[in-house]
Amino acid sequence: MSTGDAKIDFPPENVRKYLEPGPIVLISSQWQDEHDIMTLGWHTIMEFSPSLVGCMISAINHSHQLIRASGECVINLPTADMIDQVVAIGNSSGTQVDKFRANNLTPRAASNVQAPLIDECVANFECRLYDDALVEEYNFFIFEVVKAHIRRQPEYPQTLHYTGAGIFNVSGATLLDKSADFRPGML
Amino acid sequence: MSTGDAKIDFPPENVRKYLEPGPIVLISSQWQDEHDIMTLGWHTIMEFSPSLVGCMISAINHSHQLIRASGECVINLPTADMIDQVVAIGNSSGTQVDKFRANNLTPRAASNVQAPLIDECVANFECRLYDDALVEEYNFFIFEVVKAHIRRQPEYPQTLHYTGAGIFNVSGATLLDKSADFRPGML
Repeated sequence: MSTGDAKIDFPPENVRKYLEPGPIVLISSQWQDEHDIMTLGWHTIMEFSPSLVGCMISAINHSHQLIRASGECVINLPTADMIDQVVAIGNSSGTQVDKFRANNLTPRAASNVQAPLIDECVANFECRLYDDALVEEYNFFIFEVVKAHIRRQPEYPQTLHYTGAGIFNVSGATLLDKSADFRPGML
Repeated sequence: MSTGDAKIDFPPENVRKYLEPGPIVLISSQWQDEHDIMTLGWHTIMEFSPSLVGCMISAINHSHQLIRASGECVINLPTADMIDQVVAIGNSSGTQVDKFRANNLTPRAASNVQAPLIDECVANFECRLYDDALVEEYNFFIFEVVKAHIRRQPEYPQTLHYTGAGIFNVSGATLLDKSADFRPGML
């Protein structure tokens, strides 16, 4: 795990580079003096600009309540070497443990939201709730990424992709560049 | 590419195994005598049972019209060896070419929908439109998987994960089994 490397700003309209591949992410949230972290694999890019991401956050998660109350969260991207922390976070409850402390993770102040960034993650996307039309029925939150931070290297981090039953695929070790076969407008 | 291998039925409530990792999929659709195929990376699992998948299908795609008119589609999972077909499908329009013929793909009759399965894909999920509440505003379709077909092997196919700019990650070559670290109820 690399900690404390300086991050640079990244254009929010380009976060598809990190999220469209479908990695497991860590959602951090804060409401008043409570914070939490949860694992999430049920998310999708919905628009470039505004930069919209849809997330299915079950109401059984403590984080659900903090995010509804605050209207904010941070989507953090863990790399494959953080798998033990990812699994531990997904198998514990924020009502019982401080997930930063229990998992040796470093909270860092965000720029535009109260929720803390997870410093160890390779990218952090600060989000504000953009549309809650489907929250009541499906627990589906549409967030706008209002600020994005990334570690410059690796350019294509190895990420975790969950298949259920405790089994993860690792992505990012093999890259295929097919840009020469794209029409210019499709790149 | 492996063609014509028999497929077996798979429980629709378990399709997260194939879709939660976030692969590029091929959406096939049919309305009256028109059919189409499109590539899609903007999708997410939303519920196990009913088996719900949310898909952001831009209105600029010919497929969008066929899916709205028919209320149906098939989500097909291509493996990494199909990358040239995936790229060609994403860079052509169904109003101008027959995407099955142009890409040497085999349509096969589905059980519960009019849209054809793509036989060469390792999995095929027949879908009916379940909720169109966000279609007008976001082009976001919530589908129910009503029938799932999978090729038995490989159990964890190598899939394509799009990062934009013509660059794909390949996932599935490295598997990490952390099931021993999960609480029973979380598996």
